[in-house]
Formats: sequence, C-alpha cells, structure tokens
Amino acid sequence: VRLDDLDTPFPTVDLDVVERNVASMQEYCDAHGLALRPHVKTHKLPAIAALQLRAGAVGLTCQKLGEAEVMAHHGFDDILISFPLVGERKAERFAELALAVRLAVGADSAAVARSLSAALEPRGALAGFIVDCDTGFRRTGVQTPNAAAELAELVDGLPGLELRGLMTHPSRPGCGAWLSEARRLIEERGLRVDSLSVGGTPRARDTHLESGVTELRVGTYAYNDARCLAGGTATLDDCALRVRATVVSTPTAERAILDAGSKALTNDPLVQSPGGSFGLIAEYPEATLYALSEEHGHVDVAACERRPEIGEVVTVIPNHACGAVNLHDEVALHRSGDVVEIAAVEARGLLR
Amino acid sequence: VRLDDLDTPFPTVDLDVVERNVASMQEYCDAHGLALRPHVKTHKLPAIAALQLRAGAVGLTCQKLGEAEVMAHHGFDDILISFPLVGERKAERFAELALAVRLAVGADSAAVARSLSAALEPRGALAGFIVDCDTGFRRTGVQTPNAAAELAELVDGLPGLELRGLMTHPSRPGCGAWLSEARRLIEERGLRVDSLSVGGTPRARDTHLESGVTELRVGTYAYNDARCLAGGTATLDDCALRVRATVVSTPTAERAILDAGSKALTNDPLVQSPGGSFGLIAEYPEATLYALSEEHGHVDVAACERRPEIGEVVTVIPNHACGAVNLHDEVALHRSGDVVEIAAVEARGLLR
Repeated sequence: VRLDDLDTPFPTVDLDVVERNVASMQEYCDAHGLALRPHVKTHKLPAIAALQLRAGAVGLTCQKLGEAEVMAHHGFDDILISFPLVGERKAERFAELALAVRLAVGADSAAVARSLSAALEPRGALAGFIVDCDTGFRRTGVQTPNAAAELAELVDGLPGLELRGLMTHPSRPGCGAWLSEARRLIEERGLRVDSLSVGGTPRARDTHLESGVTELRVGTYAYNDARCLAGGTATLDDCALRVRATVVSTPTAERAILDAGSKALTNDPLVQSPGGSFGLIAEYPEATLYALSEEHGHVDVAACERRPEIGEVVTVIPNHACGAVNLHDEVALHRSGDVVEIAAVEARGLLR
Repeated sequence: VRLDDLDTPFPTVDLDVVERNVASMQEYCDAHGLALRPHVKTHKLPAIAALQLRAGAVGLTCQKLGEAEVMAHHGFDDILISFPLVGERKAERFAELALAVRLAVGADSAAVARSLSAALEPRGALAGFIVDCDTGFRRTGVQTPNAAAELAELVDGLPGLELRGLMTHPSRPGCGAWLSEARRLIEERGLRVDSLSVGGTPRARDTHLESGVTELRVGTYAYNDARCLAGGTATLDDCALRVRATVVSTPTAERAILDAGSKALTNDPLVQSPGGSFGLIAEYPEATLYALSEEHGHVDVAACERRPEIGEVVTVIPNHACGAVNLHDEVALHRSGDVVEIAAVEARGLLR
C-alpha cells in the first residue's frame, strides 16, 4: 500500500525521518553527557517509544497517568509523569503502577506529595518525586530555589517517596543556574539530588549551556512541525508528520478549501500572536492556510503561480505535532511513501 | 453514580438542558414554518440525534461521510452531508449509503456532482444534491446566483442525482435574498427547488427574517458554549456541556493550573481576535482561562475573592462545544448530577 492509496484526511509519519531525528538528538545528548528521556505526548505510540529507547534514551516521560499505563503495559519500565497527579483515584493508580515499573512524578506541592505517599505506603510501593520548578514560564512549579528545597525536604520525610531531582519546563536561559541553586540548598540540608531535568524541543540543543543540567525531556523533536520550522530548529526534511488532505472546493481563483480543518490539524497557532498560517502546505509553500473550520482548511492561493485543483491531494505540516496527533485514532507509518503500518495511536485521548 | 464520582478531566452533558434547548429551537422552527435539520457534528451521539428527531426534526445534517454512516447504522434514514465529497472512495461509499437511506450532499462544483453521479448510476441509487452557495462567509459555495443556477441545471442532467435545493452557511443578513434570487433563476430554467437551507446557531432565531428560507441546520444550540454566551444567544443555564477539571497547582496567589488544557477544551478562541478566555469557569466567573497547554489550563484568579485550592473540582464551559466534544471518547450524560450513562462519542474523530 502506498500513501496515495489512503483516503484523506490522513496523518502520516515518515519512519526514516523519525529515526534520523531520534538518532540526531541522542547524539547531541551523548556528546554532552545528558540523559535523554523522550516525551511520548508527541507520538503516543509504543513503536516510536521503543525506537527512542533502542537509540539510547534512559526512559520515557508521560504527561498523563493513562499514557504511562499504556507504555507500562507495553513493557517500558522507567517512566516519569511530568504532571501533578491530584486526587485519590489517581494516587491509587499511580501507586499500583509504581509496583510494576520504576516510576516518578513531577509536582510542585506538599498536597500532591502527601497524597501520593498515602497511596504508596500501604502497598509497600516506592516512587520517585521530582520537584517541579518554575524558572520563568509561569505555569506550574515552585517559585524559588528555597521553596524547592523546602518541598524536597518534606518529600524526603514521606514514606513511599524518594527525592530524585528537580525539573523545569520549558528550558529557558538561566534555568540551569536556577536549578543548580536549588540543588545547592537541598544538598545543604543533607539530601541528594541526582537529576536536574529540563524540557522542550525549541531550546533542546542549548541544554549543554545550562550549568548542572543532567537530563533532557523532549517530544516534538521526533516529528517536528511548523513551529519548529518557524523557530529554525528543523528543516522541511526533518518534518516526519504530515497530514494528507484533498482540495474539495476552489470557489474563487484565490481560495482553495481542504478537507482538513481544526479536527485534523488543531487550532493551535503558529506562534502566540494573531495571524499566521495553521500549517504549511508542502506542495504550495506560498499558500497560507489562513483559517480553519472544523472540517475545512481555508487556503489563500493568490501567491501561488500554479493553483491547486479539486481532487488534488496535498500534504500539510501541522503547526503543533502533539496536538494534531491527539486528534487521530490512527497514523500511517511509512518509508518513502510505502505504508509500513496503519498504527493505532494507543495513548491518544487519555486525559485521566 | 454522581458526577462527583468521576475523575477529571471529564466532559459532561446535562440531558435536561439539552431537551430544553432542543424543544425551544423546534418551537421556533414550528412557529415560523421552518424545517429543522439538526447538525450532529456538535454532539456526535445517536442518542441526542434521536431526541432531536422525536422533538420534530425532519432529518439530520452530518459534516462527514463517516458521521453519516454511523447515524445510518443507528437507523436514521434522512441525512444531508453538508460537505463536498471528493474522490472515488468517498463517491462509492456515498452511493452505497444512498441505497440504504434518503441521502443528499451539499457541494459547489460540477466535478463533485459528476463524480457522485458516476458512482450512483451503476448502483441504481438516487441521492439529492444541494447547491452550496457562498452568501458572504467566503468558505465553500458558488459565488453568484447565476453560478448556482448553472450548477443546478448540470446536476439535473446527471443520472443518480436529484436537485433538491440550495444551502448556505452561516446564515448572514441578506442570505435569504441571495438564495431566493438563485431559486428564481433556477425556476426560470424550468427546474424545481424544494429547499432553501441555512445554517449556524448564532443567527438561528433570525431565520424567519430571511425571505424564502425553508430549512434551518444548527448543531451548537443543543449544547451551547462560551461563544454562545459571548454572542448573547444563550445563558449559563442553557449550557449543557461542561468539562469537569481539577485544580492541580496553585504556584502563586494569582495563578491556578487545571488538569484540562487544549486536549480537553481545544485551542478554539472565544472570538476571532487575540485575547479572551479559553472557557468559562462556572464557579469562578471572574477568573480568566488565559492560556492552554496541552494538559494544563492556565487560570488567572487575581480577580476572584475566594481562590481555588489544589484538589478542588471546577466545571469549564468550553468556547466551542463541537471542537471540545471531538476530543473525548466518552461523555457523561446526566440529570441534576446523576449520571444516566457514560456514552461513547460514536461519531468522534471520523474525519473521512
């Protein structure tokens, strides 16, 4: 089966490109003595996770407990869940999973630490705790190195939990210094910090510039997307994920409509500002995917010398690979257009 | 089981509210002699479609062939697919479906009409064709009433296809006059136009102001969403769809983080302009859901007198019900918080 045989819209993943991307990031990490812990949230596929482990990754990062359960079921035995797990049900599932695999959680509160400990202890289970630090992105994370040290000390005293390190996302200039200062304060309290972990594809290859960092968590690098192109961290040849779409209407000479809208590509913007395209059309780089309805991609083709016709199939590189993948129950894995497998996106939509 | 017993994030649908919304729109249509053909793209649930038919709807609207196949499988026998079906595979599936149910397609090109006819004719199948008209939204649709008449005449000459009417989306002031002029031109050619169909919840209750319109296609009205609130066509009590989410981090006094991000709510903006919230938090109407990561909802709670705590469950009304529903494999149908059914969103993710 060739990609051309698939109806549209259909997301496709070029395995040759994925292997190259995975090898290249592993080489970077190896060259700088960094542990690589890929984030599965991008691909959500056990097969690609296996490829990352074979290349040299130390373990996996998941964003949701449900993703971690799927990966554990497939035999992956070292998993960090980089999201605060809140509530008794999640604490119990976390503790059960900790009996099966080497597990850790990234979180920023005593409430989460206590709740997980309370579920781990009666089971005789042990899990790692990574103190989540806000080094400037203003999402989750403790606000100061001192707060990190206080939480670390509290975690150290809780049964079932083991302090394993510090994490932040995304990597920003100075995050290494922030985390290193927190480590110093924690070590002053007589505790050990094994891992300083940073995340995010955009600054991945600047990780060695951040003092003290030992681990890199990245997801998007395996597929890349239009944001990576815009940020200059990937070229067109590095973009493994593309959504095949058909031109279904050409109402005017300047406008073409695709059968891929926000339900195939997401409304995730190219950058956090208005305007911009909702994906790059590889065959028509001058075209702008200027708006998305749920099922329609609105394309301005005024700048294109040749104009697409009804029935023509094009390939769109989504703005945001992780979000786009999450919309699809299956992806076509291929090499040079030969479909290797229609793979179920097993960890898709696992929100809990 | 109560809603409180469900882990988060979890989308919930209040059936009492849905029934009220459905009855109210049916009353409007009945009062003005309009046929109501609800769009299933919002709920994607056979159970809610059945409720709409029982209330008096004449049939269903689907956006994708896959959605129509699911609905036909559940016994719904009058379906309009309001999207141009392009390609041989879709033409064949369309023709097969036309053997089983009363089927129509909305499209704007001779290419689509010819392709569908070529698949219908050898099967001895008959399907309706609705000429899709661009009355100002600039998505799909023929550009002039005269172009509508030309396409109508071409369709009339194609075996397997039956000209049934004209459609536009969304309803805009003057669309009735546009469609009526097209009908006049078509009737001049000796052809009959049974249906003038307009779509969209925002102007649904102005449909009677548009001369000549005979049918209303609406989806969002069954659930409503934050866009409907912003547009003034719904009140908080009319919002049937809410996503339960948990506060998982309160890194500062002004910021709370929810476990519902773009993978639970979509990045669909409130309006087509920057800024605005990514959903309304019912318990904290002063709060702003100012950004979404995939799994994180970033909430500014500075304006809230009482601040949410870690572990607290809140209910979010998404900006866009249709997009949000499409992210979830299941929704909790409830009455006054009592869960009636955890329903599989059967027509979810059917992109082809």
